[in-house]
Amino acid sequence: MANESIPYKIYLSEEELPQTWYNVRADMKVKPAPLLNPGTGEPMGFEDLRPVFCDELIRQELDNDTREIPIPQEIRNFYKMYRPSPLIRAYCLEEKLKTPAKIYYKFEGNNTSGSHKLNSAIAQAYYAKQQGLKGVTTETGAGQWGTALSMACSYLGLDCKVFMVKCSYEQKPFRREVMRTYGASVTPSPSDQTRIGQKILSDHPGTTGSLGCAISEAVEVATSHPGYRYVLGSVLNQVLLHQSVIGVETKTALDKYGIVPDIIIGCAGGGSNLGGLISPFMGQKLRGEQDYRIIAVEPASCPSFTRGRFAYDFCDTGMVCPLSKMYTLGSGFIPSPSHAGGLRYHGMSAILSQLYHDGYMEAVSVEQTKVFEAAEQFARVEGILPAPESSHAIRVAIDEALKCKETGEEKTIVFGLTGTGYFDMVAYEKFHNGEMHDSIPTDAELLESFSHLPAVPGQSK
Amino acid sequence: MANESIPYKIYLSEEELPQTWYNVRADMKVKPAPLLNPGTGEPMGFEDLRPVFCDELIRQELDNDTREIPIPQEIRNFYKMYRPSPLIRAYCLEEKLKTPAKIYYKFEGNNTSGSHKLNSAIAQAYYAKQQGLKGVTTETGAGQWGTALSMACSYLGLDCKVFMVKCSYEQKPFRREVMRTYGASVTPSPSDQTRIGQKILSDHPGTTGSLGCAISEAVEVATSHPGYRYVLGSVLNQVLLHQSVIGVETKTALDKYGIVPDIIIGCAGGGSNLGGLISPFMGQKLRGEQDYRIIAVEPASCPSFTRGRFAYDFCDTGMVCPLSKMYTLGSGFIPSPSHAGGLRYHGMSAILSQLYHDGYMEAVSVEQTKVFEAAEQFARVEGILPAPESSHAIRVAIDEALKCKETGEEKTIVFGLTGTGYFDMVAYEKFHNGEMHDSIPTDAELLESFSHLPAVPGQSK
Repeated sequence: MANESIPYKIYLSEEELPQTWYNVRADMKVKPAPLLNPGTGEPMGFEDLRPVFCDELIRQELDNDTREIPIPQEIRNFYKMYRPSPLIRAYCLEEKLKTPAKIYYKFEGNNTSGSHKLNSAIAQAYYAKQQGLKGVTTETGAGQWGTALSMACSYLGLDCKVFMVKCSYEQKPFRREVMRTYGASVTPSPSDQTRIGQKILSDHPGTTGSLGCAISEAVEVATSHPGYRYVLGSVLNQVLLHQSVIGVETKTALDKYGIVPDIIIGCAGGGSNLGGLISPFMGQKLRGEQDYRIIAVEPASCPSFTRGRFAYDFCDTGMVCPLSKMYTLGSGFIPSPSHAGGLRYHGMSAILSQLYHDGYMEAVSVEQTKVFEAAEQFARVEGILPAPESSHAIRVAIDEALKCKETGEEKTIVFGLTGTGYFDMVAYEKFHNGEMHDSIPTDAELLESFSHLPAVPGQSK
Repeated sequence: MANESIPYKIYLSEEELPQTWYNVRADMKVKPAPLLNPGTGEPMGFEDLRPVFCDELIRQELDNDTREIPIPQEIRNFYKMYRPSPLIRAYCLEEKLKTPAKIYYKFEGNNTSGSHKLNSAIAQAYYAKQQGLKGVTTETGAGQWGTALSMACSYLGLDCKVFMVKCSYEQKPFRREVMRTYGASVTPSPSDQTRIGQKILSDHPGTTGSLGCAISEAVEVATSHPGYRYVLGSVLNQVLLHQSVIGVETKTALDKYGIVPDIIIGCAGGGSNLGGLISPFMGQKLRGEQDYRIIAVEPASCPSFTRGRFAYDFCDTGMVCPLSKMYTLGSGFIPSPSHAGGLRYHGMSAILSQLYHDGYMEAVSVEQTKVFEAAEQFARVEGILPAPESSHAIRVAIDEALKCKETGEEKTIVFGLTGTGYFDMVAYEKFHNGEMHDSIPTDAELLESFSHLPAVPGQSK
């Protein structure tokens, strides 16, 4: 281990913190499809989105052309509390696997939110504050986004209302207290506090909730309370823009040591981490400067890329949000309650969906028992207790490293370690006790879900 | 904030990771008193301690003279997984307090054990492995030490048996799963698995346990299982030696920017963090090179320094361990179950006890409600969710910074942020719900406890 000249952890200095976010859409020949108004089927413009989102964030959402967008100084100051994040050489994992592959991971868990979500939370809260708003509403699944947003709002003095997917609320009781520590209000979703929540509870009694439901509730509250807007932790173009800070730092760190990755791997729920991590590398690929294998990893129980349809669909279960063209399992799809590993969203970032459709990246789905095996193996040698979400990427990184062991290839693998698993011990406990099962939707279940895709001109069901 | 030339986080490079631990005893004119055999009242030598501790660790325990002790390369490699740890300038806290004071904290929570305990865990596990042992036993209170030791043992392939103070076991159910993730066995203490545990359960039915009880159980198991030794996460001289890596890094980072602290603050339970943090600064003070105010902060519900006796006492409740001369509340003292803030040990490091007795440092005790107020205030501006233990130091750092605000003095304050509070959300929840109370022992309770101090020649009760 000690005979390598590359350190265990590559830290950039605060001066090397990126000055700009990188907007991958500028380099895409085929742009992601525009959001559509669910009532008219027309593309949604600035004014259409204003009741829901902050003005500056809408500009970022709609901007397919500007390659570099400056990061405001106030956001950079906040970033300095926990960034640049380390790029870590997994020497101990390599040794354990006895692989000739060189494995690196970009670790985004070294902040109290425990994940990369803080990168976009502070940006969205900042623009809300700039606009003179009172507060923001949002949904959270595993609780990472809600925690991140409550931290950012607390820092800026904004009110923060979080709707938390009910099964996570129950599985992760302590997440609520972290959010309360940061002054947020947290409501399990579906709740009886919104019309849409009441309807979902009445149509599906006993539902454990989904991100789609929680989004509908948060949007309803934002649009019915003056001075509030809705913010979202993934899926949107603006979120991938903010998360590009992960990829830009990763590339800067690799460039410093002359390292060129062969394979880049990220877990994918809504796509925020994966999109952020790969963005500058994808930019090179789109411009024809460099080729990389880019792999999205998703749970077998929520397989948007690998078994979904590339189609316009609602972003939320309540069908109040715009339509987005994306890989989707249908906005009514809810993963089995036995699924513990996060990444529960029915759809996928429009940017990543277009890139996947156009052949710029691969996708694989993995079963959660295999994911937790990889998580435990990683924890024991690398020291970090990974979040289940992040462990999807670990699973595939290990699989690729083991392929290198067979072939003898010294490939360089980079993956995103998006967060820590401190609040996922109920899931780890199930795994330790042999009580974790894989639950994969049947073809019939998916067909039923696809049958509810909205009618959009030119789109067949 | 941005107009300061000192970065938010001072990171040393891996090359700057200390090559040696610093042994403050070498610079003490009055050495800490030796451990005594509880049967004979005689000082314990190498052979007396061999049934309990690893050989090399006994040598370190007894070595009052060697100033610099090399850190073995294997331990340095492990340290590189999470060290050097950052020294952080609390710009945001300073701004919030509107204090002219400059506040720095050494953050030891950026590893999966969530605290500084890993620094000694890997050292102790390493020497056990070197000696060819099968495994180690230990106790854990808040669970930080047990987690740290299970990580170190997992890394080196040693068996790890942890006795966890029953009230923490119940308050922190997820800690058990983290330890299991790292392959350790975890037993709530007192248990019926040991003779001493059976006796304590029979004498004190319904007891919530104490570190002192758990130590007795772990020692009994170590001494009755061939190939096992006992390891301890605090109090001992060897532990303070390993933890000196905190202070050496802190001093190196400060020196780089020409910063000389006025006040150094650490929380104190058994003394491992405080002793480690202050060691090189105390060395300068002992050698007359530089003066600093050094403040130990302890809970008002377990006030060893501020209300204890400086006397020989048992290190454990079961009275099977050697006698140590220290500030103690009596080995039978158990803090109120309403005490949530960690630092529950009845005694204190012999080194720190001697230094406190000789006037080289101060001590204050603080009530836990005030500690959690400071914790929440800190979390909201600095982003990090602090452990209750660490928040004792935050409380006093804030108090000192507010004094500077009154006087206008630009003092430089350094404190140890020993860990994160992810597994302390039950306590945070009590605080949020207004259900947290302070529970301070009465003079009569302490007098009763002191009456059980052992009879040692020259020591009055």
